[in-house]
Amino acid sequence: MKFSPALTELIEALRCLPGVGPKSAQRMCLHLLERDREGASSLAHALQQAVERVDHCRRCRNFTELDICEICADTRRDHSVICVVETPADVLAVEQSGSYRGLYFVLMGHLSPIDGIGPAEIGLDRFQERVVEEGVAEVILATNPTVEGEATAYYLTDMLLPRGVKVSRIAHGVPLGGELEYVDGSTLAHAFSGRRAVEQ
Amino acid sequence: MKFSPALTELIEALRCLPGVGPKSAQRMCLHLLERDREGASSLAHALQQAVERVDHCRRCRNFTELDICEICADTRRDHSVICVVETPADVLAVEQSGSYRGLYFVLMGHLSPIDGIGPAEIGLDRFQERVVEEGVAEVILATNPTVEGEATAYYLTDMLLPRGVKVSRIAHGVPLGGELEYVDGSTLAHAFSGRRAVEQ
Repeated sequence: MKFSPALTELIEALRCLPGVGPKSAQRMCLHLLERDREGASSLAHALQQAVERVDHCRRCRNFTELDICEICADTRRDHSVICVVETPADVLAVEQSGSYRGLYFVLMGHLSPIDGIGPAEIGLDRFQERVVEEGVAEVILATNPTVEGEATAYYLTDMLLPRGVKVSRIAHGVPLGGELEYVDGSTLAHAFSGRRAVEQ
Repeated sequence: MKFSPALTELIEALRCLPGVGPKSAQRMCLHLLERDREGASSLAHALQQAVERVDHCRRCRNFTELDICEICADTRRDHSVICVVETPADVLAVEQSGSYRGLYFVLMGHLSPIDGIGPAEIGLDRFQERVVEEGVAEVILATNPTVEGEATAYYLTDMLLPRGVKVSRIAHGVPLGGELEYVDGSTLAHAFSGRRAVEQ
Protein backbone atom coordinates (compact mmCIF):
# COMPACT_ATOMS: atom_id res chain seq x y z
CA MET A 1 0.00 0.00 0.00
CA LYS A 2 1.15 3.49 -0.79
CA PHE A 3 -0.27 6.94 -0.30
CA SER A 4 -2.50 8.36 -3.03
CA PRO A 5 -0.77 9.86 -6.13
CA ALA A 6 -0.90 13.52 -5.01
CA LEU A 7 0.56 12.59 -1.61
CA THR A 8 3.26 10.38 -3.12
CA GLU A 9 4.20 13.18 -5.50
CA LEU A 10 4.39 15.72 -2.67
CA ILE A 11 6.54 13.40 -0.52
CA GLU A 12 8.87 12.88 -3.48
CA ALA A 13 9.02 16.63 -4.20
CA LEU A 14 9.81 17.51 -0.57
CA ARG A 15 12.98 15.44 -0.85
CA CYS A 16 14.57 18.14 -3.00
CA LEU A 17 15.04 20.06 0.27
CA PRO A 18 18.50 19.54 1.78
CA GLY A 19 18.55 17.20 4.77
CA VAL A 20 15.08 15.80 4.10
CA GLY A 21 14.91 12.01 3.75
CA PRO A 22 11.89 9.79 3.03
CA LYS A 23 10.68 9.73 6.65
CA SER A 24 10.89 13.49 7.22
CA ALA A 25 9.27 14.12 3.83
CA GLN A 26 6.34 11.90 4.84
CA ARG A 27 6.09 13.66 8.20
CA MET A 28 6.14 17.10 6.53
CA CYS A 29 3.53 16.07 3.97
CA LEU A 30 1.09 14.74 6.57
CA HIS A 31 1.71 17.69 8.87
CA LEU A 32 0.90 20.18 6.09
CA LEU A 33 -2.27 18.39 5.00
CA GLU A 34 -3.52 17.68 8.52
CA ARG A 35 -2.68 20.95 10.20
CA ASP A 36 -1.44 23.67 7.89
CA ARG A 37 -3.00 23.70 4.43
CA GLU A 38 -2.80 27.47 4.40
CA GLY A 39 0.93 27.28 5.10
CA ALA A 40 1.30 24.77 2.27
CA SER A 41 -0.43 27.13 -0.17
CA SER A 42 1.73 30.08 0.92
CA LEU A 43 4.83 27.93 0.54
CA ALA A 44 3.79 26.92 -2.98
CA HIS A 45 3.27 30.58 -3.85
CA ALA A 46 6.54 31.75 -2.28
CA LEU A 47 8.51 29.04 -4.10
CA GLN A 48 6.97 30.00 -7.45
CA GLN A 49 7.62 33.71 -6.85
CA ALA A 50 11.22 33.17 -5.79
CA VAL A 51 12.01 30.91 -8.76
CA GLU A 52 10.50 33.42 -11.19
CA ARG A 53 11.84 36.65 -9.72
CA VAL A 54 15.15 36.03 -8.00
CA ASP A 55 18.21 36.32 -10.21
CA HIS A 56 21.82 37.37 -9.75
CA CYS A 57 22.89 41.00 -9.29
CA ARG A 58 24.69 42.09 -12.47
CA ARG A 59 27.60 43.49 -10.44
CA CYS A 60 28.14 41.27 -7.40
CA ARG A 61 26.25 38.09 -8.41
CA ASN A 62 24.34 38.04 -5.12
CA PHE A 63 20.67 37.01 -5.26
CA THR A 64 18.32 39.90 -5.96
CA GLU A 65 15.06 40.72 -7.68
CA LEU A 66 16.56 43.94 -9.07
CA ASP A 67 19.06 44.43 -11.87
CA ILE A 68 21.63 45.81 -9.41
CA CYS A 69 21.20 44.71 -5.79
CA GLU A 70 20.57 47.06 -2.88
CA ILE A 71 24.10 46.81 -1.54
CA CYS A 72 25.74 47.61 -4.89
CA ALA A 73 23.31 50.50 -5.42
CA ASP A 74 23.91 51.99 -1.96
CA THR A 75 25.94 55.17 -2.49
CA ARG A 76 26.68 55.50 1.24
CA ARG A 77 28.82 52.36 1.13
CA ASP A 78 32.52 52.36 0.34
CA HIS A 79 32.75 51.43 -3.35
CA SER A 80 36.55 51.16 -3.30
CA VAL A 81 36.61 47.92 -1.27
CA ILE A 82 35.22 44.58 -2.44
CA CYS A 83 34.88 41.54 -0.20
CA VAL A 84 34.85 38.20 -2.04
CA VAL A 85 32.66 35.49 -0.48
CA GLU A 86 31.42 32.10 -1.61
CA THR A 87 27.66 32.32 -1.00
CA PRO A 88 24.79 34.75 -0.29
CA ALA A 89 24.64 33.31 3.26
CA ASP A 90 28.22 34.56 3.76
CA VAL A 91 27.15 38.08 2.73
CA LEU A 92 24.42 37.92 5.36
CA ALA A 93 26.87 36.73 8.03
CA VAL A 94 29.32 39.57 7.28
CA GLU A 95 26.51 42.13 7.18
CA GLN A 96 25.19 40.90 10.51
CA SER A 97 28.61 41.38 12.09
CA GLY A 98 28.21 45.09 11.27
CA SER A 99 31.94 45.46 10.73
CA TYR A 100 32.08 46.02 6.99
CA ARG A 101 30.74 48.87 4.84
CA GLY A 102 32.23 48.04 1.43
CA LEU A 103 30.80 46.04 -1.48
CA TYR A 104 30.77 42.29 -2.17
CA PHE A 105 31.44 39.84 -4.91
CA VAL A 106 29.65 36.50 -4.51
CA LEU A 107 31.35 33.57 -6.26
CA MET A 108 28.33 31.28 -5.84
CA GLY A 109 30.76 28.47 -5.12
CA HIS A 110 34.51 27.97 -5.24
CA LEU A 111 37.08 26.66 -7.70
CA SER A 112 36.67 22.91 -8.01
CA PRO A 113 38.28 21.52 -11.16
CA ILE A 114 37.03 18.00 -10.36
CA ASP A 115 33.43 19.22 -10.65
CA GLY A 116 34.25 21.27 -13.76
CA ILE A 117 34.07 24.57 -11.86
CA GLY A 118 36.80 26.84 -13.20
CA PRO A 119 37.39 30.62 -12.94
CA ALA A 120 34.71 31.45 -15.53
CA GLU A 121 32.00 29.46 -13.69
CA ILE A 122 32.48 31.54 -10.53
CA GLY A 123 32.59 34.80 -12.53
CA LEU A 124 36.27 35.62 -12.05
CA ASP A 125 36.72 36.89 -15.64
CA ARG A 126 34.09 39.58 -15.14
CA PHE A 127 35.35 40.28 -11.63
CA GLN A 128 38.86 41.02 -12.92
CA GLU A 129 37.49 43.48 -15.50
CA ARG A 130 35.38 45.17 -12.85
CA VAL A 131 38.29 45.56 -10.41
CA VAL A 132 40.50 47.12 -13.10
CA GLU A 133 37.79 49.34 -14.64
CA GLU A 134 36.52 50.72 -11.36
CA GLY A 135 39.97 51.21 -9.87
CA VAL A 136 39.13 49.21 -6.74
CA ALA A 137 41.59 49.95 -3.92
CA GLU A 138 41.35 46.70 -1.94
CA VAL A 139 39.95 43.23 -2.40
CA ILE A 140 39.30 41.32 0.83
CA LEU A 141 39.25 37.56 0.38
CA ALA A 142 36.69 35.96 2.70
CA THR A 143 36.35 32.54 1.08
CA ASN A 144 36.05 29.63 3.50
CA PRO A 145 39.17 28.19 5.15
CA THR A 146 38.66 24.87 3.31
CA VAL A 147 40.95 23.37 0.67
CA GLU A 148 38.76 24.74 -2.16
CA GLY A 149 38.25 28.10 -0.46
CA GLU A 150 42.00 28.52 0.07
CA ALA A 151 42.73 27.50 -3.53
CA THR A 152 40.20 30.07 -4.73
CA ALA A 153 41.77 32.76 -2.55
CA TYR A 154 45.19 31.82 -3.89
CA TYR A 155 43.96 32.03 -7.49
CA LEU A 156 42.42 35.46 -6.84
CA THR A 157 45.62 36.74 -5.23
CA ASP A 158 47.61 35.56 -8.24
CA MET A 159 45.15 37.26 -10.58
CA LEU A 160 44.91 40.61 -8.78
CA LEU A 161 48.36 41.36 -7.33
CA PRO A 162 50.04 41.84 -10.77
CA ARG A 163 47.36 44.45 -11.54
CA GLY A 164 48.43 46.57 -8.59
CA VAL A 165 45.35 45.87 -6.47
CA LYS A 166 45.80 45.53 -2.71
CA VAL A 167 44.64 42.05 -1.71
CA SER A 168 43.98 40.91 1.87
CA ARG A 169 42.70 37.74 3.51
CA ILE A 170 40.48 37.79 6.60
CA ALA A 171 42.17 36.46 9.74
CA HIS A 172 41.73 32.85 10.80
CA GLY A 173 42.40 31.85 14.37
CA VAL A 174 40.84 31.05 17.71
CA PRO A 175 37.19 32.23 17.69
CA LEU A 176 36.10 34.65 20.42
CA GLY A 177 34.71 32.71 23.35
CA GLY A 178 36.48 29.61 22.08
CA GLU A 179 38.65 27.77 24.56
CA LEU A 180 42.17 26.92 23.41
CA GLU A 181 41.77 23.43 24.81
CA TYR A 182 38.93 22.65 22.39
CA VAL A 183 40.24 24.40 19.27
CA ASP A 184 41.45 22.03 16.53
CA GLY A 185 45.12 21.83 15.54
CA SER A 186 44.92 23.53 12.13
CA THR A 187 43.06 26.51 13.58
CA LEU A 188 45.71 26.81 16.31
CA ALA A 189 48.47 26.58 13.69
CA HIS A 190 46.73 29.40 11.77
CA ALA A 191 46.42 31.42 14.97
CA PHE A 192 50.16 31.08 15.66
CA SER A 193 51.35 31.83 12.15
CA GLY A 194 48.97 34.80 11.98
CA ARG A 195 50.10 36.29 15.34
CA ARG A 196 50.62 40.02 15.56
CA ALA A 197 53.14 41.97 17.59
CA VAL A 198 51.54 43.67 20.57
CA GLU A 199 52.26 47.39 20.52
CA GLN A 200 52.28 49.69 23.48
CA MET B 1 20.72 43.89 5.83
CA LYS B 2 18.19 41.29 4.88
CA PHE B 3 17.58 39.13 1.86
CA SER B 4 15.39 40.55 -0.91
CA PRO B 5 11.57 40.36 -0.40
CA ALA B 6 10.99 37.17 -2.42
CA LEU B 7 13.79 35.38 -0.53
CA THR B 8 12.59 36.64 2.85
CA GLU B 9 9.07 35.47 2.03
CA LEU B 10 10.30 32.03 0.96
CA ILE B 11 12.42 31.63 4.11
CA GLU B 12 9.40 32.59 6.21
CA ALA B 13 7.12 30.19 4.28
CA LEU B 14 9.54 27.26 4.65
CA ARG B 15 9.18 27.54 8.42
CA CYS B 16 5.67 26.06 8.19
CA LEU B 17 7.45 22.71 7.72
CA PRO B 18 7.81 20.78 10.99
CA GLY B 19 11.33 20.86 12.44
CA VAL B 20 12.50 23.72 10.22
CA GLY B 21 13.89 26.73 12.11
CA PRO B 22 15.23 30.03 10.72
CA LYS B 23 18.70 28.66 9.93
CA SER B 24 17.48 25.53 8.10
CA ALA B 25 14.88 27.59 6.24
CA GLN B 26 17.65 29.92 5.02
CA ARG B 27 19.80 26.96 4.01
CA MET B 28 16.89 25.34 2.14
CA CYS B 29 16.02 28.58 0.36
CA LEU B 30 19.58 29.20 -0.84
CA HIS B 31 20.04 25.55 -1.82
CA LEU B 32 16.90 25.59 -3.95
CA LEU B 33 17.78 28.84 -5.73
CA GLU B 34 21.44 28.00 -6.22
CA ARG B 35 21.16 24.38 -7.19
CA ASP B 36 17.65 23.13 -7.71
CA ARG B 37 15.23 25.62 -9.22
CA GLU B 38 13.50 22.82 -11.08
CA GLY B 39 12.97 20.97 -7.79
CA ALA B 40 11.54 24.16 -6.27
CA SER B 41 9.04 24.49 -9.12
CA SER B 42 7.98 20.84 -8.83
CA LEU B 43 7.59 21.26 -5.09
CA ALA B 44 5.39 24.34 -5.59
CA HIS B 45 3.26 22.38 -8.05
CA ALA B 46 3.01 19.27 -5.83
CA LEU B 47 2.00 21.37 -2.81
CA GLN B 48 -0.72 23.13 -4.78
CA GLN B 49 -2.04 19.84 -6.20
CA ALA B 50 -2.08 18.11 -2.84
CA VAL B 51 -3.86 21.00 -1.11
CA GLU B 52 -6.48 21.12 -3.85
CA ARG B 53 -7.07 17.42 -4.38
CA VAL B 54 -6.44 15.52 -1.17
CA ASP B 55 -9.41 15.18 1.14
CA HIS B 56 -10.66 12.62 3.64
CA CYS B 57 -12.18 9.29 2.62
CA ARG B 58 -15.90 9.44 3.37
CA ARG B 59 -15.77 6.08 5.15
CA CYS B 60 -12.43 5.83 6.97
CA ARG B 61 -11.31 9.49 7.04
CA ASN B 62 -7.87 8.58 5.64
CA PHE B 63 -6.35 10.97 3.09
CA THR B 64 -7.42 10.26 -0.47
CA GLU B 65 -8.16 12.00 -3.74
CA LEU B 66 -11.21 9.76 -4.27
CA ASP B 67 -14.58 9.83 -2.57
CA ILE B 68 -13.96 6.40 -1.03
CA CYS B 69 -10.29 5.44 -0.62
CA GLU B 70 -8.66 2.43 -2.27
CA ILE B 71 -8.59 0.39 0.93
CA CYS B 72 -12.29 0.92 1.70
CA ALA B 73 -13.17 0.15 -1.92
CA ASP B 74 -11.09 -3.04 -2.04
CA THR B 75 -13.59 -5.94 -2.04
CA ARG B 76 -10.82 -8.48 -1.39
CA ARG B 77 -10.26 -7.09 2.07
CA ASP B 78 -12.16 -8.25 5.16
CA HIS B 79 -14.92 -5.69 5.65
CA SER B 80 -16.01 -7.14 8.99
CA VAL B 81 -12.92 -5.93 10.89
CA ILE B 82 -12.00 -2.26 11.45
CA CYS B 83 -8.70 -1.13 12.90
CA VAL B 84 -8.82 2.32 14.57
CA VAL B 85 -5.61 4.36 14.25
CA GLU B 86 -4.69 7.98 14.97
CA THR B 87 -3.04 9.08 11.71
CA PRO B 88 -2.56 8.17 8.02
CA ALA B 89 1.09 7.37 8.85
CA ASP B 90 -0.19 4.67 11.23
CA VAL B 91 -2.22 3.12 8.39
CA LEU B 92 0.95 2.99 6.30
CA ALA B 93 2.91 1.38 9.15
CA VAL B 94 0.26 -1.33 9.66
CA GLU B 95 -0.01 -1.94 5.90
CA GLN B 96 3.75 -2.28 5.62
CA SER B 97 3.74 -4.94 8.36
CA GLY B 98 1.59 -7.01 5.98
CA SER B 99 -0.25 -8.58 8.91
CA TYR B 100 -3.68 -7.03 8.52
CA ARG B 101 -6.31 -7.39 5.77
CA GLY B 102 -9.30 -5.58 7.28
CA LEU B 103 -10.38 -1.96 6.98
CA TYR B 104 -9.34 1.15 8.93
CA PHE B 105 -10.81 4.12 10.66
CA VAL B 106 -8.45 7.09 10.97
CA LEU B 107 -9.21 9.43 13.87
CA MET B 108 -6.87 12.16 12.58
CA GLY B 109 -5.87 12.78 16.18
CA HIS B 110 -6.98 11.61 19.60
CA LEU B 111 -9.31 12.77 22.34
CA SER B 112 -7.80 15.83 23.98
CA PRO B 113 -10.40 17.86 25.92
CA ILE B 114 -7.80 20.51 26.80
CA ASP B 115 -7.40 21.33 23.08
CA GLY B 116 -11.15 21.15 22.51
CA ILE B 117 -10.92 17.81 20.70
CA GLY B 118 -13.91 15.71 21.73
CA PRO B 119 -15.52 12.58 20.22
CA ALA B 120 -17.18 14.54 17.36
CA GLU B 121 -13.90 16.14 16.25
CA ILE B 122 -12.31 12.73 15.70
CA GLY B 123 -15.42 11.38 13.94
CA LEU B 124 -16.56 8.95 16.64
CA ASP B 125 -20.27 9.79 16.16
CA ARG B 126 -20.17 8.68 12.53
CA PHE B 127 -17.93 5.74 13.38
CA GLN B 128 -20.46 4.41 15.87
CA GLU B 129 -23.25 4.60 13.28
CA ARG B 130 -21.07 2.83 10.75
CA VAL B 131 -20.14 0.01 13.10
CA VAL B 132 -23.79 -0.62 13.98
CA GLU B 133 -25.15 -0.24 10.43
CA GLU B 134 -22.57 -2.46 8.80
CA GLY B 135 -22.67 -5.11 11.53
CA VAL B 136 -18.91 -5.00 12.04
CA ALA B 137 -17.65 -8.11 13.86
CA GLU B 138 -14.51 -6.74 15.50
CA VAL B 139 -12.95 -3.34 16.15
CA ILE B 140 -9.19 -3.42 16.80
CA LEU B 141 -7.92 -0.41 18.77
CA ALA B 142 -4.46 0.60 17.58
CA THR B 143 -4.23 4.10 19.04
CA ASN B 144 -0.83 5.02 20.47
CA PRO B 145 0.14 3.86 23.96
CA THR B 146 0.19 7.46 25.22
CA VAL B 147 -2.12 9.00 27.81
CA GLU B 148 -4.37 10.47 25.08
CA GLY B 149 -4.23 7.33 22.94
CA GLU B 150 -5.19 5.15 25.91
CA ALA B 151 -8.01 7.52 26.87
CA THR B 152 -9.30 7.38 23.30
CA ALA B 153 -9.14 3.57 23.31
CA TYR B 154 -10.98 3.51 26.63
CA TYR B 155 -13.70 5.82 25.28
CA LEU B 156 -14.13 3.63 22.17
CA THR B 157 -14.38 0.48 24.29
CA ASP B 158 -17.04 2.12 26.43
CA MET B 159 -18.95 3.17 23.32
CA LEU B 160 -18.80 -0.12 21.42
CA LEU B 161 -19.04 -2.93 24.00
CA PRO B 162 -22.68 -2.13 24.99
CA ARG B 163 -23.58 -2.46 21.29
CA GLY B 164 -22.34 -6.01 21.21
CA VAL B 165 -19.28 -5.37 19.10
CA LYS B 166 -16.11 -7.33 19.84
CA VAL B 167 -13.39 -4.87 20.79
CA SER B 168 -9.66 -5.68 21.04
CA ARG B 169 -6.52 -3.71 21.75
CA ILE B 170 -3.21 -4.46 20.01
CA ALA B 171 -0.56 -5.91 22.34
CA HIS B 172 2.02 -3.65 23.95
CA GLY B 173 5.26 -5.13 25.25
CA VAL B 174 8.92 -5.70 24.53
CA PRO B 175 9.59 -4.98 20.82
CA LEU B 176 11.20 -7.75 18.76
CA GLY B 177 14.96 -7.34 18.78
CA GLY B 178 14.65 -5.18 21.90
CA GLU B 179 16.83 -6.12 24.84
CA LEU B 180 15.08 -6.39 28.19
CA GLU B 181 17.90 -4.43 29.81
CA TYR B 182 17.13 -1.35 27.69
CA VAL B 183 13.33 -1.48 27.70
CA ASP B 184 11.65 1.20 29.83
CA GLY B 185 9.72 0.35 32.97
CA SER B 186 6.18 1.05 31.73
CA THR B 187 6.71 -1.10 28.63
CA LEU B 188 7.99 -3.93 30.85
CA ALA B 189 5.00 -3.50 33.16
CA HIS B 190 2.71 -3.80 30.10
CA ALA B 191 4.65 -6.84 28.93
CA PHE B 192 4.15 -8.56 32.29
CA SER B 193 0.48 -7.71 32.73
CA GLY B 194 -0.18 -8.79 29.13
CA ARG B 195 1.62 -12.13 29.45
CA ARG B 196 0.00 -15.18 27.91
CA ALA B 197 0.00 -18.76 29.11
CA VAL B 198 2.29 -20.94 27.02
CA GLU B 199 0.38 -23.92 25.67
CA GLN B 200 1.83 -27.23 24.65
